[in-house]
Amino acid sequence: MGIDIDKVRAETPGCANVVHLNNAGAALPPRPVIDAVAAHLEREAMTGGYEAHEASAGAAGRFYDAVAGLIGARRDEIAYVENATRAWDMAFYAVPFGEGDRILTTTSEYSSNAIAYQQVARRRGATVEVVPDDAHGQISLDALAGALARGGVRLVSLNHIPTQNGLVNPVAEVGRLCREAGALFLLDACQSVGQLAVDVTEIGCDLLSSTGRKYLRGPRGTGFLYVRREALGTLEPPFLDLQAAEWHAPDRYEPRDDARRFETWERFVAGQIGLGVAADYAAALGVEAIEDRVTGLAERLRSLLAEHSGVTVLDRGAHRSGLVTFTVEGHDAMDMKLSLREKGINVSVTVPRAHGYLPDAPDAAVRASVHYYNTEEELGRLVEALPR
Amino acid sequence: MGIDIDKVRAETPGCANVVHLNNAGAALPPRPVIDAVAAHLEREAMTGGYEAHEASAGAAGRFYDAVAGLIGARRDEIAYVENATRAWDMAFYAVPFGEGDRILTTTSEYSSNAIAYQQVARRRGATVEVVPDDAHGQISLDALAGALARGGVRLVSLNHIPTQNGLVNPVAEVGRLCREAGALFLLDACQSVGQLAVDVTEIGCDLLSSTGRKYLRGPRGTGFLYVRREALGTLEPPFLDLQAAEWHAPDRYEPRDDARRFETWERFVAGQIGLGVAADYAAALGVEAIEDRVTGLAERLRSLLAEHSGVTVLDRGAHRSGLVTFTVEGHDAMDMKLSLREKGINVSVTVPRAHGYLPDAPDAAVRASVHYYNTEEELGRLVEALPR
Repeated sequence: MGIDIDKVRAETPGCANVVHLNNAGAALPPRPVIDAVAAHLEREAMTGGYEAHEASAGAAGRFYDAVAGLIGARRDEIAYVENATRAWDMAFYAVPFGEGDRILTTTSEYSSNAIAYQQVARRRGATVEVVPDDAHGQISLDALAGALARGGVRLVSLNHIPTQNGLVNPVAEVGRLCREAGALFLLDACQSVGQLAVDVTEIGCDLLSSTGRKYLRGPRGTGFLYVRREALGTLEPPFLDLQAAEWHAPDRYEPRDDARRFETWERFVAGQIGLGVAADYAAALGVEAIEDRVTGLAERLRSLLAEHSGVTVLDRGAHRSGLVTFTVEGHDAMDMKLSLREKGINVSVTVPRAHGYLPDAPDAAVRASVHYYNTEEELGRLVEALPR
Repeated sequence: MGIDIDKVRAETPGCANVVHLNNAGAALPPRPVIDAVAAHLEREAMTGGYEAHEASAGAAGRFYDAVAGLIGARRDEIAYVENATRAWDMAFYAVPFGEGDRILTTTSEYSSNAIAYQQVARRRGATVEVVPDDAHGQISLDALAGALARGGVRLVSLNHIPTQNGLVNPVAEVGRLCREAGALFLLDACQSVGQLAVDVTEIGCDLLSSTGRKYLRGPRGTGFLYVRREALGTLEPPFLDLQAAEWHAPDRYEPRDDARRFETWERFVAGQIGLGVAADYAAALGVEAIEDRVTGLAERLRSLLAEHSGVTVLDRGAHRSGLVTFTVEGHDAMDMKLSLREKGINVSVTVPRAHGYLPDAPDAAVRASVHYYNTEEELGRLVEALPR
């Protein structure tokens, strides 16, 4: 069953105001998310923050079921974390790296993650290896299999969809290889949850981090971490507080026995409630229907762009995401973004060379990231508005 | 000049709804904070998250000046962090502890911090020492001086105001001793900023963490970290992202040269704006006037409680804070909290034994934490509502 586009647009106040093609930055929230956040903030202001939390315990708790349900996890495998970066950090820095441990990643890795790899390499003597691309620009499964076969791989860590290119990495195949090799698999799913049908069992990852504000259409300042039940015991969170562990004075503590050992007690409660509502909203539409719509619109946009003179579409990948990246010959990406903004069209500028490990990547490109609530008419408006 | 109580109450919608004496949990926000958060969330929903951030760059940037101004710091010494726990974590786990390094703390330490000490002790071979109390129940300066004199102290870490008792630690004297001994000083000011006149220069701390939601009256899901300029170079954040450091592929990174190396790029922008407004609101009232009012009301409440049969006020300290903790003989603290809630009075239950290093501390107590917008009439209503 397809998505009722008129209905979802009517439920998205921003749709009437702007052509929003910056969903990979932050998507427009739907009315139920907006209202849930606003209602809880109002309740906090009127009755007190703790008192509001107690009164909304059910809605806050719903977050765990909603997110778990969306990605095929169990409730006790989900942690609420402040944002995707912190969720990823809590997972990555929990891995007990030792001297000579190998970390495998991809050419298209997000620069924040690349910095973290290097920090751990320097501190713990781990080594970072970039697995080459295949002919489609995504991680080469043959190269990954070869790298795993050489032994000593503590972690395979990569993104599902990079920020700077429309490719989709073949994560289920990566998961299979990791399981066979007994390597831990951390997936940065910041751009994919809410866009693709992400199922952690199918993917076979041990850890998955994501954010609220992007394709899930949740609030900024929210994220989550999935930790596979069987991986929990090998991971001690880099930070612990009274939510994550129990204190036995004077010198003992016991980390929680579920994924919430990666949480902080102190939190943006309205955001937690809003993210739960956003996950339920996505699930109600259906993740397969969302994936079909987003990838269909993105391919349509690529076709329209290909007909436009001077445009180069940069996206690679055997499968491609809702992120469409391109340049227009002779035109600066930032100038185009600002010019489009004046016409009521939101896109972003991505700098492929600022991420990953490809020194010849383009310096800057326009990124138009579509969501299911976008329309073909909006794609036409974007292409019409580009310089000729 | 005193505070115009009628005016601040009129500007606080929650005051008309509830007797809020749980300000040490989360205070009621004033209208300018509520409106700033709501307006930015609305802007995000209507124009997109990144687009709203760009349009509100001035308001978001104001956060740094507002917080720096409030605590006597420089703008480049302030980091916006997700909450006080994460702010404290980013500071504490940045200290390069080695084998045998000594960590000094107090008997009244927050259990989250105590857990973190123990984690680092186990991982790095540091040792944790609890400095004894003086006769007032606050950290003994003589004992601290003695402990520092024995050498090897890497960090003195304590709270300004504990969560479970009304005492105020003598932090300026602690700071003086730390400077003389060359020990790093981390102050957990979660309960004090917005309540007391906190000045980092006067205190002489190297690091100070705090939250938005408590006495500052800002949003939940916000906090900040102060890092003294001169201490920055010795501290590498435990996590780094593209906000905190610059990436030079394939294997180099350079942390930022200011306190924002402790930040995450991804953030709750509406919260950042709201916390800046909250800091400006406090500064406009005047931190000395706030301190006078809060401590005056708290002492008044202690007097009223002392006249009530069966009540034991637990607060110690030569100086005491706005947190008033007490028990009523024969009555369970949680029962009292719930009974008061039904009468429109918010208090919390604190468990002194669950924090710090005093095994004989009470199991549970009522905590009534006053703010400047509370009134003597409200204090009377609380005492009237207690069981006889």
